[in-house]
This record gives sequence, C-alpha cells and structure tokens, in this order.
Amino acid sequence: MKQSLSIVKIGGHILDNSEAKRSFLSQFSVMDGLKLLVHGGGKSATALSQKMQLEVQMVDGRRITDAKTLEVITMVYSGQINTSIVAQLQALGCNAVGCSGADANSIQSVKRPVLDVDYGFVGDVQNVNSDYISLLLSADLTPVFSAITHNKKGQLLNTNADTIAASLAKSLADIFEVTLYYCFEKQGVLKDIDLASTLIKTIDKSLYTELLASGVISDGMLPKLQNSFDALEHQVSRVCIGQPSMLSGNSNNHTTLTL
Amino acid sequence: MKQSLSIVKIGGHILDNSEAKRSFLSQFSVMDGLKLLVHGGGKSATALSQKMQLEVQMVDGRRITDAKTLEVITMVYSGQINTSIVAQLQALGCNAVGCSGADANSIQSVKRPVLDVDYGFVGDVQNVNSDYISLLLSADLTPVFSAITHNKKGQLLNTNADTIAASLAKSLADIFEVTLYYCFEKQGVLKDIDLASTLIKTIDKSLYTELLASGVISDGMLPKLQNSFDALEHQVSRVCIGQPSMLSGNSNNHTTLTL
Repeated sequence: MKQSLSIVKIGGHILDNSEAKRSFLSQFSVMDGLKLLVHGGGKSATALSQKMQLEVQMVDGRRITDAKTLEVITMVYSGQINTSIVAQLQALGCNAVGCSGADANSIQSVKRPVLDVDYGFVGDVQNVNSDYISLLLSADLTPVFSAITHNKKGQLLNTNADTIAASLAKSLADIFEVTLYYCFEKQGVLKDIDLASTLIKTIDKSLYTELLASGVISDGMLPKLQNSFDALEHQVSRVCIGQPSMLSGNSNNHTTLTL
Repeated sequence: MKQSLSIVKIGGHILDNSEAKRSFLSQFSVMDGLKLLVHGGGKSATALSQKMQLEVQMVDGRRITDAKTLEVITMVYSGQINTSIVAQLQALGCNAVGCSGADANSIQSVKRPVLDVDYGFVGDVQNVNSDYISLLLSADLTPVFSAITHNKKGQLLNTNADTIAASLAKSLADIFEVTLYYCFEKQGVLKDIDLASTLIKTIDKSLYTELLASGVISDGMLPKLQNSFDALEHQVSRVCIGQPSMLSGNSNNHTTLTL
C-alpha cells in the first residue's frame, strides 16, 4: 500500500497577513503523515518592486516578468518568504527544507513561448524529478517549494504556484497516495464569490463542465480547477479547495473535487 | 577509509564580478568527489539596502543587522545569489541543492549576546546537523549554503560565511576526510597585501603565532586563519587559502595551513 502524502498550496493573501500566516503554519505543522508545502508570493513582490521603483507590468491580470522583476520575485519568494516559512516551521517542530525547482533539478520548466503576449521569464513546467523529493520525504523531511523553477540552462523562471503544486502531485502520485489541498482565504468554490453560504461542497467532472458553461467559475478559480481535474486524471487521489481549517481533516466546509 | 569531501567558501568580491563568478563556478563544477559550497554576499546586499533607502550601519567594519537589514540580506543571500548559483551549477552538470541553516535545522545559531556593541540579528553557530548534509552528499548532491542560519525559535540570523564553512568542515570531519578551501580574489596569505610575490605558501601553528605577533596578518585575514586552525584542530585534514585556480589541485600557488 502506498504511503499517504499531503501536498498543500498556500495562497498569497494568507501569507500577506502575519496572523493568518502563523495560524496556517501551525495547522500545517501538526498534519499527520508526509507533507509538502508550495507557496506563491502575494503582495510582497509588488511592494518591493515599488520600493525599487520598478514598474509592475500586467496583461490580463498576469504579471509580465522582465529580468529585473524576476530578480525581485526570486529574492522575495525564494529568499524572504521561503526561508522565513522554513524557520517558522522548524520552530513549530516540523522538519522543513526550503526548495526551489532548481534544487536537484527538481522542477524543470521551459520559458513560455511568445504568442500574442511576451510574459518574459515565466516557466511552464516540463518535468518533475521526484527522486529528490522522495529522498527528502523518506527522511521525514517536509519540502517547502517557492514558485521559482529553472530551465536547466542557468535561467530561473517565475512559475505559477498552483501549477507547481499540481505537477508535484501528479508526479508523486506514482509513489504516494496523494491528496492535493488548495488553501486560500475563501471557503472553497462559491456560486456567488461574495457569499460563503453558496459553497459547493463537491464538484465532479460533469458539474465542472456545467459550471464552466454557465460562467459561474471566476477567473482566479479557473486555472485552479483545471489543475485539479488534471491532477485527478493523473492518479492523484483527492483534491480539496478551501480555508486552512480543512487541513485538520475534521471539517467538511470546503470543496472536494472528484472525477 | 573515509570518503573525501571538499568544502569551498567563496568570497563576495568574486561573486560581485559576473565573469569571475562564472569562471569560479565552472572550476567548482568539475572538482572530483563530494563537494559543498558556502557563499556570502558581497556588495549586492549593500546595493539593495541603498535602493531601499536603508541606512547601512557599520561598527569596526562590521555590519549591524537590524530587522530590515536582515530582511534584505535574506532576500539577497538566500534568494538572489543562492538560487542563481544553484541554477548555474545545474546548467554546468553539477547537481546542486540550495540550503540555508534553517533547512532541516542544519545550522543552528544563537543571537550574538550584546556586550559593547549590539550587532543585531547576527548568529554565532551553535550546532551543525550533519545527518541532513550527509543525506544530500550520499545522494551525490552538492549542497550550496548561504550565510543565513536560524535559532530554531523562528528567528533567522545573519552569520559569517567563513565561520559557517569552518563549522561545517569540523562537523563533517567525523564522517569525511575534509579539505576546506577559502577561495577569494588574492593568491593567499601575503606578507605585503599588495604584492602577490609575497605569498606565504605554508603556515604552521608556530609561524601563525609569529605572524600574529608581528602584525603581518591583516584584519580581514585574521578570522579566516582563526577559523582555519580551529578546523585543523578538529580533524579537518587540510585548509587552503587562495584563488579559485587552486581548486584544480594542480596549482601550488596558494597558502596551505598545517598544524
């Protein structure tokens, strides 16, 4: 029987709030079994860009990552946020190890091809080296991934943290029984994004198709759901979307996705 | 028989110059056997502090690390420099893994006690967890350490990279036959700091005492030599100080320290 592994993606809004961040890390640290954390960046990268008087360029809500922006993102994601999360988890008794996708070539990406928009130094995940991650997990260590990958030619690449979490989940599902948690500030997938009472507790593939057609799913949620169903179709056992309280396993106040 | 391990500390001046950095990494990547890299920061942290309009406070040539400065140092050392070195080594075929002392509690420090001067968030190394580092080395991985450690209570600490290299060397000398290399822009320990021809090729303990007494050893070199003799007295096999060319093993144009 495969050992179970929880892969948790934590969203930027929670990391931006030091109280919410502390509470999340404390819940994460007491989760039973093997676990792995993936984090993005939140507002810190934008704040530092502004301090450094770099212009933040967005197209359709997506950041354009030029060379200077990549430097800021790498400093904030892999330096400030990742290292401090690891130190906080260590203080909580969780044996964390900070990782970027460049470490042991664990997540190799390719620079996104330029079509209508040149997103700059943005990576699309190409390959996960699960050997290295398994080595850490087998030693009872908890990998903490920032959303920075590389192309194995010396170039770092800014990479979507939701996609990293799903890619790790798919790749590790060969070896472990994987549950993927998308943790953020909302209760889960909501019919009305402003009303917690409109939580959809279970979404299967046919409901997903309906929701897509009816336009209920908001822009930010779309790639999360795409990633989730992709993961489920690649042997990932379970995907849950909701607030950090779902990590305790006692709550059913979140969205569970099934095929 | 113990396996041999090279521990290389690379100085800030070399990292500040992209051509010198590239050349160093290429020499490091082709070194035979197990190896580990420790790096400091150079001028990048000062440059970023200035961009962010933080005042750089120095006492007797030592930086005072207040909370904001620690944030900048963590971003630059563990984010920008560490992650990009790992990506560059990966491109050179060296299976590098970025580390801070917080990872797997590998280097635990204590905040330097306040005596005459409050250095702020500066760490004195207390304990090295060699199990984690051995795990990486046994898997043929090359750990790359930034000069950031932690106190296991959630606090990151800015720590002298020379001391980190010596502490790792001492701790790993139980398991490996360790050579410690202090790599910088000068040829080694020079009688006249401006004259490469005054290189001292071998320094034993009695010459060290003489040099100390005669004031030949400059301020920057003092802690390096203290660290070196401390390492030699704790089972480290060899310590060499000089330019990156010494890593090839063919040059004897550097300083070798012996007891």
